[in-house]
Order: sequence, then structure tokens, then C-alpha cells
Amino acid sequence: MKKNSDLYFTVDRAFKILLENITVPKRIELVPVFESLGRILKDDVIAQENIPIHNSSHMDGYAIKSTDVTIASKKNPVLLKISHSESILGNLPHHIMKKGEAFRIQTGGYMPLKSDAVIPIENIKIINNDLVEIVKPIEKGSFVYSAGSDIKKGKKVLSKELAIRVQHMGLLASLGISKISVFKKPLVSIIPTGNELTNDIERNKGNKEKKVVNINGHIISSLVSGLGGISIDMGVTPDDVDILKRKMNHALKTTDLIITIGGTSAGKQDIVKSTIDSMASSRIIAHKIKLDRGRVTGLAAVNKKPILIMPGPIQGTLNAFFVFARPLISLFSGQTTINVFTVSAIMVEDWTCRKKFHDFRKIVYVNLIKFKDKFYANPIIGETQSMSLIVDTNGYVIVHENVTNLFKGDVVQVNILPGYSYVNDIQFMG
Amino acid sequence: MKKNSDLYFTVDRAFKILLENITVPKRIELVPVFESLGRILKDDVIAQENIPIHNSSHMDGYAIKSTDVTIASKKNPVLLKISHSESILGNLPHHIMKKGEAFRIQTGGYMPLKSDAVIPIENIKIINNDLVEIVKPIEKGSFVYSAGSDIKKGKKVLSKELAIRVQHMGLLASLGISKISVFKKPLVSIIPTGNELTNDIERNKGNKEKKVVNINGHIISSLVSGLGGISIDMGVTPDDVDILKRKMNHALKTTDLIITIGGTSAGKQDIVKSTIDSMASSRIIAHKIKLDRGRVTGLAAVNKKPILIMPGPIQGTLNAFFVFARPLISLFSGQTTINVFTVSAIMVEDWTCRKKFHDFRKIVYVNLIKFKDKFYANPIIGETQSMSLIVDTNGYVIVHENVTNLFKGDVVQVNILPGYSYVNDIQFMG
Repeated sequence: MKKNSDLYFTVDRAFKILLENITVPKRIELVPVFESLGRILKDDVIAQENIPIHNSSHMDGYAIKSTDVTIASKKNPVLLKISHSESILGNLPHHIMKKGEAFRIQTGGYMPLKSDAVIPIENIKIINNDLVEIVKPIEKGSFVYSAGSDIKKGKKVLSKELAIRVQHMGLLASLGISKISVFKKPLVSIIPTGNELTNDIERNKGNKEKKVVNINGHIISSLVSGLGGISIDMGVTPDDVDILKRKMNHALKTTDLIITIGGTSAGKQDIVKSTIDSMASSRIIAHKIKLDRGRVTGLAAVNKKPILIMPGPIQGTLNAFFVFARPLISLFSGQTTINVFTVSAIMVEDWTCRKKFHDFRKIVYVNLIKFKDKFYANPIIGETQSMSLIVDTNGYVIVHENVTNLFKGDVVQVNILPGYSYVNDIQFMG
Repeated sequence: MKKNSDLYFTVDRAFKILLENITVPKRIELVPVFESLGRILKDDVIAQENIPIHNSSHMDGYAIKSTDVTIASKKNPVLLKISHSESILGNLPHHIMKKGEAFRIQTGGYMPLKSDAVIPIENIKIINNDLVEIVKPIEKGSFVYSAGSDIKKGKKVLSKELAIRVQHMGLLASLGISKISVFKKPLVSIIPTGNELTNDIERNKGNKEKKVVNINGHIISSLVSGLGGISIDMGVTPDDVDILKRKMNHALKTTDLIITIGGTSAGKQDIVKSTIDSMASSRIIAHKIKLDRGRVTGLAAVNKKPILIMPGPIQGTLNAFFVFARPLISLFSGQTTINVFTVSAIMVEDWTCRKKFHDFRKIVYVNLIKFKDKFYANPIIGETQSMSLIVDTNGYVIVHENVTNLFKGDVVQVNILPGYSYVNDIQFMG
């Protein structure tokens, strides 16, 4: 190993060089506001209207003129005459309040002109369906939600690059915005390679077909979707340079990012890399990465589009996804700041890095649980192709170069990944 | 208010009576494993196969007989002859290892019979493409991933009611399972009511149409989907008992759970409740709930199906969703334990409950941020129809009955809701 160590790139250096050799797509589309959940906002949003657009009530009750009840008390109740018209939600009343009047209004209803306070239905007595009895003074503005008091016209209400949530959709619609500019979702081609692969689980059951089920392609596809990409399954692909080259050329023409899985190894011929090498305007950025597991990961660019060359064993595939695909999909989705949700957790066991990999970036798989208000992370160690390991875990910790140990009691940052970590799972509960 | 307080139900009592009056659907469907992400597993899964199914290598290198190299040293290297056949992934080799042989193998490849160790490619020298030079003894079992060492046949590998994640899909496929029994997603009808409502944002811009945009229906619809339900938008519905009754009857026949929004209030006629009252075999469980905001929430059952009657103002709608719809959708999705992902956070401001609502359950909206490894919750207070309030928040705290204050520095549990909390949002980052 030592003899080759100069050929290994750190994760950061490889990623930096990759970014220098690709173009980040910034394609825009206009989508209906209520179909924009999870999309990345292209521009800042400035309110073009007040919310509420007119003064409105935030109680069910009666709009009044506060000056009418200045002298009201239990001893000297004031009687106001109930107006014949009443508020209809969405309508600014034509009615103009006269002295001594009470105007029936509901929560959210617009106030009639010259009214300035609302008295809630539960604080009054109604006499003969005709009069409202008020027994104490009411301050001007009571229970009035004045125009612009929620959102003022001209205010910047949302910032570009925000991931749109339900409340943002609600705000946009309230502001009269029906369609919104967002970044197009990146198209991600997934090419699982290997003569051994099959998608036919049923036929290969008990290894009858002497094949290996294509699992990683499907896992990566789900993770891509979970991060807001659109995954294009290019299908299992034999170890055949011509076929691989045709698929890659197609993927390069039609999608934004290409992920290959398998066909990269320290031992056998690197079919993916030799295919890329044979392509015009190709550039292999890094053959080997200081990433454990996952050191045979590769990065390449062809015509300014990135190709992530992921190892076949599941931990290698996932790790390459965590450190390269995840931030790349984030960038390609329109966010210039790469954010990953992490929770602080207490290590419940020691962890030691594998010999020879001290200066690598390490991925530690953990089982994250919440117990009595605190998160705990239990590191799970296992072979690179172990399914039980990934099934027993629901988060991962990134251990930086030259950090060789995590100790029981250490606070670590556990990365939460949609589809893998599943925040509503019972495992998150104490 | 005081005079009516006996009519109010606590959240827990209302929910309990609702459960006694409805039937929780337990419909099953068989779905392809790689389309099962997020679905709730119906049964425990027992491994019917070993993983790996045969002894296999977890390095690229050579399979050998460890007894051949017992005496190997730098001074006395052992030379093994490279076999003409080599491993093909997925194939159990026909080859039976002879003494003095080395069999080319890759990670995941099955070991030939009578081999018992693997030497990694980086630890050997190959001479003339014909001989492998080994300079130290290799322990029996080295780098061998023996049959069943990952998963043993007969082991219970997944528990019923689990929410399926990518790693579970991978495990199921590895075990030769192509389809899996999961609970059907519940169908949730959403009926936004009110003469004032419109879905036409564009036409009503600047309140031109004197209408109110139906925002809450769309927000609830997105939240239902985020929790794994299928939302059926029944469209904006006028305050008309006949129309409402027809829609509700249709919803009761075709879906599992009905959510109405609006048309429930302390002030005006409760059109939704009077409609339900007029239906055969209807039962109003609770008219008013000790929930702030959201006290005009109602629960009903018709033909053993639940109807959640949510207030129109956005905070009331959301709160009714948090305390009733969220657990109900969880139950209706097949989980008998209701789990909600929460993070512990430190309050950065005091919060005091509103007067008169001490014995209510209170929902406190917070802006949750992560800073230097800790979560902090900033309570945001505002009117019941405030859009800016919900836009400024990304989580909520449930404050139990008779708790009247939260103090700066208190540790609270902030509920995370998919679509509302958005775990990958920049707001979660320090």
C-alpha cells in the first residue's frame, strides 16, 4: 500500500478538483406554488401585498368604535345596536360604522371602515338579537389585526436557495403568488456494472442463477430521490467497454450527473475507468480516494459533467455517496451552501480506525437512539459487504483525516440521511 | 368561557373516545421490495437463506489453503501456482483447491472448495503471471466471509411495523425476497369549507375576487403525504349543508379518514358539526377541545370512520393536525406505537400560556436552530391566522395541561414534522 499512497487523493482535494472541472447546472422552472414542496427557491421573495390586506378581526365577535364604550362599566353598561349587515370572509364591508353600532364579524373578517376594535363574542351579552351589552371600556385596536401587521408590503419574506416547506407555500399563496421559480431537479444516471448482476430477485433466489442481485443501484436511486434528485436507472450493465461507453455517452447527453457502481477495484481491471479514459474530452480527476471504506472510489469529468465511480461493496458505495454524491446533488439542486442535518450524540463504545488508514477520511456507521432526552451513537463495525451492518445502523459519523479514535463518551455529529435514517422510525425513540 | 368549560374535552380523552368509536383499517398489499421505501412492514421477516450463501472473500486477492503457507517467511517465501480458473462473482467455483495452488478471487467472490483463507493482492508478489510469492503464514479463515456470517438462516432480521428504509430493502433483496407485505397507505379526504374560499390565487390577487385563498387544505394535504397517507382533495366546499353532506358521504364511502377545515367556530353556526349531526349513525365525539390554539376543533365518527373537524385559522388547523391527525395517520398506516421524532432543545426565551388556557394542552411554535452542537428553540408568538409566525418556525413543542410556563434555559422536546420542519434546511445548521 505504502508505495501507492501518493496516488491517493484526499476527499476534499478530489472534490475541489472535480468542481473545477465541471459546470454546475442552474436550470430554472416555474412551478405552481402548491407543487413546490422541497424545491429550492431561485430568488428572494419580496411581499407585493400587505398581509392582511385590510384591517381584520382575530376573534369572532363584534367590530365597534372604541370611543363608544369609553365609559362602559358593570354599573353603566353601554348598549350598541347590531348592524343589519355583517362581515363576509374575504369581503371588505361596504358598511361604514356609525356611532353606537356593533358590526358582527368573524375571525379573519375585514373590519368595516371607521371601526377600530373588536369585542369577542364570549365577553358580551346580546339582548333581543338586537343589542350588544358592553360592561367595560375597550382599547382602540383590541383584537384588530391591522393591514400589514403580519407581513408588510415591500418586506423580503423568503431568501433565495431556501428549501420550500409547507409554511412557505402558504405564505406565497397568501401574497397572491401562484407560481414560483425554482431550480430544476438534477437528473442523476445510475449505472450498476458487473456481469454478475441481475435485477431478478425471484429467479436468483438461493443463488440458483449464480448471479448477484443489483441492490446498490436501487439503494442509490432511492437516496438520490430522497435528496431531491431524479434518478434514472440505466439498468445492470455487463463488464463490456463498448456497452458501458454507449450507456455513458447517453447518460452524458441526457443527464446532469453520472454514478457508476462497481467495476472499480484495486485488483481487477478497472473497467469503468478504462472506459472513461477512452472517451474524448474525458478527465479522470482521481483514481483512488483517501476514504475508508471506499478507497477505490473515483471521480471523473467528461464535457464538464461529473462521473462518480463508486465501489461495488455496499459500504464503499454508500460512503462514496455520503462524501461526494450528497454534496454534489445539493449543489446541483440549486443550493450553494451544502447543509447536512446532524444531531449531536454521545458515543457508547470506543471506535478505532483501521490500520493503514490513519490519514484517510473514515465513515463510522452508528445506531442512533434517543434515550431520556439525549442521543446516543453506537458504532457498528463490519465487513465492507455486510448487509447486517447497514441494517443495524441509521446514521453515520464522518471522522476526519488523522483522527484515529473516538472514545466512549465523546460527543459526535451523526449525519441524518433521508431514506436511510428515517426520522420517524421507532429507533429514534427512547 | 367559564360557563362552557365542562363541555371541553382534554386532547387525550377526546382521542381515546374517538378510538373507541372507529375501526383502524389494517389492509395489506404486496409490493416489490424496491418500491417499499417508507412503507410499514406487516410481518416479522425471518431469513430463509444464509448471507453470504457460500463462503466468500472480502478482499481482492487469492484464495489459498492456509496449510500451504505455514512455514512462509521473508527468508523462505512460499510460491503457489496460480490456478487457470478464477472466481466469477455469483458463481460457486467448480474448482477444488489442490495443494500448492492460489485461486484468483475478488471481493464478494465465492471461495473454491477446500480453500480456507484469502491473501489480499497488495500483500503478495506475482512472478511471471504464474506464481504468487507469500512471505508470511496466513491464518485459516483470513479475509474469508463464511457462509451465514453476515446473516444466519432462521434469524429474525426485521420486525413487523418497521418503516422500511433503503437498508431494509437491500437486506430483503439479498434474502431472495422480491415482494413484501406492507400495510396499505390510508386514504385521507380533505374538505376545506367556506363560501369565501377559492383555489384561484391569480384571480384573487390583491383581494380582487373578494375571496380567501384555500391555503390550509393544501398544507394539510402535503403534511398527510409526508406522513405516508394519500391525500384526496375534495375541493373547496361552500357553507351548504346539502353539498357538504354529499361530499362527506362520498368521502366516508371511499376513504379512511376525513379532515374538514373551517366551518367550525365559537361564533357562527357550526356548519360541519350540524351536517354530521344530521347523518345516520353519526356520533360527535367532542365539540370543543382543551387545545390552544384550536379549541373549536371537533372529532366525530360516522360508520366507524373518523372525522377530524379542524378550525380555519392556520394555527388551529395545524395544532389539530399535530395532536389528532398525526397519530391517527400513524395508526392507520399500520404502526401500533405512535412515534414522533423529537430533538431536545434549550429554550432561548420564556414562554407563558395565555390566560384562561392553563388546563389546556398548548402548542408552542419554535424556531429550532443548531449552534455549536446544541439545539436551541426560540418560541414565536403570534395571532392565530399569522402566516409570518409559521414561516418563522420549523418545529413545535407540546405543553401539557396545567404547565403554564417554559423558562429560558429549559430543555424542551421539539417535534419534527416532515414537510414543515425540513431536516435538511439551512435553519438546522449552526
